[in-house]
Amino acid sequence: MKDYQLLKTLCAIPATTGDEQQLNEFILEYVLDHRDDWDSQPAIFAGDGFQDSIVLAFGNPRIAIFAHLDSVGYCAAYGNRLIKIGGPKAEDGAILVGQDSRGPIECILRKREEVDEKDKDGKKKDIFEYEFNREIDRGTPLTYKPDWREDTVSIQCCYMDNRFGVWNALELCSNLKDAAIVFTTYEEHLGGTAQFIGRFLYKSFGCRTALISDVTLTSEGIKHGDGVAISMRDKGIPRQRFLRSIIQHATQAGIQFQLEVEDAGGSDGTQLQLSSYPWDWCFIGPPEENYHSPDEKIYKSDIEATQDLY
Amino acid sequence: MKDYQLLKTLCAIPATTGDEQQLNEFILEYVLDHRDDWDSQPAIFAGDGFQDSIVLAFGNPRIAIFAHLDSVGYCAAYGNRLIKIGGPKAEDGAILVGQDSRGPIECILRKREEVDEKDKDGKKKDIFEYEFNREIDRGTPLTYKPDWREDTVSIQCCYMDNRFGVWNALELCSNLKDAAIVFTTYEEHLGGTAQFIGRFLYKSFGCRTALISDVTLTSEGIKHGDGVAISMRDKGIPRQRFLRSIIQHATQAGIQFQLEVEDAGGSDGTQLQLSSYPWDWCFIGPPEENYHSPDEKIYKSDIEATQDLY
Amino acid sequence: MKDYQLLKTLCAIPATTGDEQQLNEFILEYVLDHRDDWDSQPAIFAGDGFQDSIVLAFGNPRIAIFAHLDSVGYCAAYGNRLIKIGGPKAEDGAILVGQDSRGPIECILRKREEVDEKDKDGKKKDIFEYEFNREIDRGTPLTYKPDWREDTVSIQCCYMDNRFGVWNALELCSNLKDAAIVFTTYEEHLGGTAQFIGRFLYKSFGCRTALISDVTLTSEGIKHGDGVAISMRDKGIPRQRFLRSIIQHATQAGIQFQLEVEDAGGSDGTQLQLSSYPWDWCFIGPPEENYHSPDEKIYKSDIEATQDLY
Repeated sequence: MKDYQLLKTLCAIPATTGDEQQLNEFILEYVLDHRDDWDSQPAIFAGDGFQDSIVLAFGNPRIAIFAHLDSVGYCAAYGNRLIKIGGPKAEDGAILVGQDSRGPIECILRKREEVDEKDKDGKKKDIFEYEFNREIDRGTPLTYKPDWREDTVSIQCCYMDNRFGVWNALELCSNLKDAAIVFTTYEEHLGGTAQFIGRFLYKSFGCRTALISDVTLTSEGIKHGDGVAISMRDKGIPRQRFLRSIIQHATQAGIQFQLEVEDAGGSDGTQLQLSSYPWDWCFIGPPEENYHSPDEKIYKSDIEATQDLY
Repeated sequence: MKDYQLLKTLCAIPATTGDEQQLNEFILEYVLDHRDDWDSQPAIFAGDGFQDSIVLAFGNPRIAIFAHLDSVGYCAAYGNRLIKIGGPKAEDGAILVGQDSRGPIECILRKREEVDEKDKDGKKKDIFEYEFNREIDRGTPLTYKPDWREDTVSIQCCYMDNRFGVWNALELCSNLKDAAIVFTTYEEHLGGTAQFIGRFLYKSFGCRTALISDVTLTSEGIKHGDGVAISMRDKGIPRQRFLRSIIQHATQAGIQFQLEVEDAGGSDGTQLQLSSYPWDWCFIGPPEENYHSPDEKIYKSDIEATQDLY
Repeated sequence: MKDYQLLKTLCAIPATTGDEQQLNEFILEYVLDHRDDWDSQPAIFAGDGFQDSIVLAFGNPRIAIFAHLDSVGYCAAYGNRLIKIGGPKAEDGAILVGQDSRGPIECILRKREEVDEKDKDGKKKDIFEYEFNREIDRGTPLTYKPDWREDTVSIQCCYMDNRFGVWNALELCSNLKDAAIVFTTYEEHLGGTAQFIGRFLYKSFGCRTALISDVTLTSEGIKHGDGVAISMRDKGIPRQRFLRSIIQHATQAGIQFQLEVEDAGGSDGTQLQLSSYPWDWCFIGPPEENYHSPDEKIYKSDIEATQDLY
């Protein structure tokens, strides 16, 4: 049976948007430790001028696989208030962990609705607070406490989004040829990294084709166990010519896949499209339920279909 | 009398955002067929690295005319649901056409309101569905069935936005000097092409001045028959120095124009402004009524004023 | 006592987004008049290709200080309607000034709420109109009539946002080394300048570190008199590594500062992040009350703390 130990480890490393240093260091170390087992040695681009993102260039990259490092979470504001990082979806009572100048933190998320006083029509909004035995330093990022669950059918934990995508990209490294692996930041909150990495790859290698290695949502049309999801569109619309070539490939290869058509959700693909470089992109990954919560669940068979397609 | 046969043909070619291949091919063929009649021969940039956009560079371009190829429409999702491409405004009952793996499609648009279950305040949202004798392949784009109407005063059809702008740009080709014609994609949905074309023109020719060849909306201040509209602002605000030079030119040339001041609506001008290159831009075009519907109507006199100004 | 004459003058120069020519010229003149008193002479980049923005490069810039020139305001539309430029917050009755083809304007702002007919749920929206003895030319920008108020504790006027930031940047010029001062436009409305200036600095000097010289808002956690605000986040999230280095510096230098954590508000920092270049950025400035109104108030002690930190 497939061993998901590496994925479990990845899910437990805190890396909210803007603060991905620890995960960046873990991956760089992993690459240095494992590259001798890979078919070819990638050029490694990281550090100065790359913020906390990493590019691994195998050969002469014609295609790039983007996997974002950052996750949603919460950030301590004034008093016991929390502000969202990205779009976390945990319920009241979730356990959050972190670290500030006074030591480690394990606190409880409190969530309630309140009328927005600034809204003319009295619209409601969510209020997030923490319950802890002391005040937390302003700006401290908090993440879900990891709770890995696995059975024969599925795996479940916080931050499958997007440690699955990162894991999938790392697994690909063993026999990659003329492709780049890209680990980005800022995907969950506003974007920003994909643009400059896109520029770097375009100018360095003429590369302008991207696969987005991430997880999507189960929905009316996308089900657990029905295979890897190929997104025909989310908020953004990828080039349909490029999309059709991928669908054709998946069909011919006999891979179990499902076509996703949504009007919301974005990815580094959207950021690449809005950049000053002519990128083609396509989102490919397994569906999960309970997205952005501590309980993100993915089916193992969908993971296998995803690995078949990449 | 002016012959609008070419515009009529353009309005009937489906080209929703992301899927402009057919219109791209039509225009390339048109250019190859007609360029011998033009005063000067443009350099043609298309294909690899340009997605479905096209750049025609006449001489050494000091100014670029941007006309977007793509149109709004609908995209088949799950069951008989449709998702919007851009912001279509058709009423319930409109006829939509398309093509999928099982053949040609002519179906009826169904539109209704429903309470948004995800909204805390029970806000209403529009639901779009199709009525057809079979299910349509996921992701299939659907467009309005063209119905060209013309009298002495006006022309009316779907997709005047922006086949008028495309037609206007093609008409200019016969005696253009030191200017570029740019056919873009993604204008109706999220943007993305103007940015990389803007980069291309800036780096290739030092060109950073754009006119946006498109149609605008009739409104409280913009009327059919009052001439070409020069937009002083929409969602974006063009450089007022540049705008004033255009207004001055139009005044001195005795062209019938009307000044538009709106707080909404965007164009490739907005995308150029948000890019990493210092573009000046101005939106110039005739007003239409029933925008983004199957019944977009433009006055012929406003078309003539537009052609006078360009 | 500190003399704020220059800041008072800056607050009185109209420069709504897109129309910053007059302020651009004032600053260029100021630079030419005063640079002989500065420790080193900057290279001046302005004019062609820079729109109304200005870059002063001292030595070999490792860091850039961004101060936006433009302010919020209103723009004459049809009839006596006004459209917002950026997000002005004046109350009904505020005095607006401007200039059009028929001469100088001093009119009264009328503000009322109205049900938005286009909204399905009958949401209310603000309507802005002017009261004046004649119609105003379409597109004419209107700004608050300046009313400078100063006592021992505070200064108050319209457009502290961002003439304070501009003034702060100009004050720094006297002994700046290996840094750039950047005056941008479009910050209050959609953005656009920071992107191309960011590209220019990155390509010319390899510079990709920015301080945003601006004012922020008093809030639950940010108080008048508590020192300069260092923003840990607003709508955007700056690189936390970079932020921590600034906080450490401020702490070691014994500067009075307060940490801001908000979920809204943006700046040229956001624009730099979304560009194709890997900028680090941090927002640093004093808090003000009554933001975007004619009565923006800042404490002098917070100004001094700001100048200490820069």
